[in-house]
Amino acid sequence: MAITHATGYAISSPENYLKFELKKYELDPLEEDRITVAVECCGVCGSDHHTISGGWGPFQTKFVVTGHEVIGKVVEVGSKVSEFKVGDRVGVGAQVGSCGKCKACKGPNENYCLQPVHGYNTHWYDGSEHQGGYSTHVRAQERFVFHIPESLKSTDAASMLCAGITTFAPLVRNGAGPGKKVGVVGLGGLGHYAVLFGTALGAEVTVFSRSDAKKEDAMKMGAKNFIATGEKGFEKGHELEFDLIIVTASSNQLPINELLACLDVDKKLVFVGMPDEGLTNITSQALSGNGASLSSSHLGNRQEVQQMLKLAAEKNVKPWVEILQMKDAAKAIKAVENSTVRYRSILIQDIDA
Amino acid sequence: MAITHATGYAISSPENYLKFELKKYELDPLEEDRITVAVECCGVCGSDHHTISGGWGPFQTKFVVTGHEVIGKVVEVGSKVSEFKVGDRVGVGAQVGSCGKCKACKGPNENYCLQPVHGYNTHWYDGSEHQGGYSTHVRAQERFVFHIPESLKSTDAASMLCAGITTFAPLVRNGAGPGKKVGVVGLGGLGHYAVLFGTALGAEVTVFSRSDAKKEDAMKMGAKNFIATGEKGFEKGHELEFDLIIVTASSNQLPINELLACLDVDKKLVFVGMPDEGLTNITSQALSGNGASLSSSHLGNRQEVQQMLKLAAEKNVKPWVEILQMKDAAKAIKAVENSTVRYRSILIQDIDA
Repeated sequence: MAITHATGYAISSPENYLKFELKKYELDPLEEDRITVAVECCGVCGSDHHTISGGWGPFQTKFVVTGHEVIGKVVEVGSKVSEFKVGDRVGVGAQVGSCGKCKACKGPNENYCLQPVHGYNTHWYDGSEHQGGYSTHVRAQERFVFHIPESLKSTDAASMLCAGITTFAPLVRNGAGPGKKVGVVGLGGLGHYAVLFGTALGAEVTVFSRSDAKKEDAMKMGAKNFIATGEKGFEKGHELEFDLIIVTASSNQLPINELLACLDVDKKLVFVGMPDEGLTNITSQALSGNGASLSSSHLGNRQEVQQMLKLAAEKNVKPWVEILQMKDAAKAIKAVENSTVRYRSILIQDIDA
Repeated sequence: MAITHATGYAISSPENYLKFELKKYELDPLEEDRITVAVECCGVCGSDHHTISGGWGPFQTKFVVTGHEVIGKVVEVGSKVSEFKVGDRVGVGAQVGSCGKCKACKGPNENYCLQPVHGYNTHWYDGSEHQGGYSTHVRAQERFVFHIPESLKSTDAASMLCAGITTFAPLVRNGAGPGKKVGVVGLGGLGHYAVLFGTALGAEVTVFSRSDAKKEDAMKMGAKNFIATGEKGFEKGHELEFDLIIVTASSNQLPINELLACLDVDKKLVFVGMPDEGLTNITSQALSGNGASLSSSHLGNRQEVQQMLKLAAEKNVKPWVEILQMKDAAKAIKAVENSTVRYRSILIQDIDA
């Protein structure tokens, strides 16, 4: 029988962003290119916290069911779906749809579609609301559904669909690999993936973190060096050293100019953390000393997600995850807010569908 | 007889930045790798105005003789100079020395040397003061002296050494050429070169300017399109269009987020204008929509300067210049300040050496 509704842990307003309540709601329609996935587990992302706490603005939908790092089973496929069948284990990340018509979609950059459909708190092109994976079911266009290699555990694969690809795509698009030096600023959910994947790709990874507190963890993840940015003058001796720096910290208090000075000529500092506030006092002089670029990045394209999952399976990349029941979503969000999660929380399905 | 002194038009303090007075001063020493150039003419750059008016901070030397777009004759060569001889017509730009030891110098990026010697208001490594080309003589390391192709007039070649290369290097480093769309923001001294060289390289150039006032000029220079950024919503219909945008305007009031939206995926907006104030409110979200980069650039390397001069000679690139006597430097600086110069002033030598 066709699935028409999902049940999920919903937040009704930013004022009560820890008050998850089970709600039943209508799913967006199963179009010919879409797939219905029964959620097995779902990662908890910084975006979930930013969204429900109102940091990124008011809610776009009546209520919000977050969650965009979904692993589950295919339970329905649209009439034109070709790569998937009912029963397949799949992943769905932070984008579930794209227009298919813009320059980005026609190129291999559907992750930069001009009218993307994000994983929750959003609408499909027909106006129907779309919610996320702290729930029984999600729907996505086939282009945004991925086969999960057998050797990857669901709880390991889940957070790769957002946190993983968010760091993996800028790594590969900027040539991270053997002989390259990659800096990773901040060691949270995103940062730990940047270290794991940077290392798996063969680059030499250095972690920049405020204090030495996470040094041991960083080295265990594969980092070769660790720099405490809380120490004044930390950049001395590192000028022109790095081929790429990925900033995963979600703060606008970063020592950006000092970090930029650590880049080799014509290289990039890529923000993947998303501070609520804008960056201030960026001087073009700070960029012109070495032709540095300040950039950002949004997820990755289909080929990159597939490449990442293959690499993770081949190199046995294992994220550091804490596993909770889905009903404990508030606890997981609180741990994101307090930066106490080590390093990603995964919620296991516990809703009676 | 060895040349020990130069005479130049000097400014003594930012408070009196239009009060040029002839001063005689000791030249920095003629080291084995240096060349003495007798100045024939010198371009007037926005940097000259920023420096003498104090916009970039207090003076570094007792007084300042600006000018870093020099064309002149070689009158002395150091013992290890190999490519030049007395009598050669040469150009000297905004950098006259580099350490030769850092990673940038060892690579082909001496323009990003960690301890560069700029064209004026600076010191050599031995502490001696260095002044610029509103004067009778300048000295520079051989690496920063360039043969001028015979077909280029001195008054046309002068401003290529700074304004020209400042736009040419980011054009070539970012692939400007046939089939590429380049945006140029601001049509002043730098902007007009970005149009001329972008066109000479075969790219399709679009000028972004506040109003339509300079449209006719832009088209004459070779631009194919013109967009007035003063009109709200100017970016509509141009999303993902450009392969590169070069910002030559020296203002922090630019519609940066709208310009960024005009870039294709993973492309750069390169600042070459240098506002005195920092840019504010750059959000990583504005960059993540298309993976855009905000970058800057500093001059170009030796190979790029040579490539530029060769292209200018081959394609008959002619800058739009206004020619004055050197004693009229204040008038030229005032025209930079008021943005009335069309599009670069060149000062002709008038000092009795």
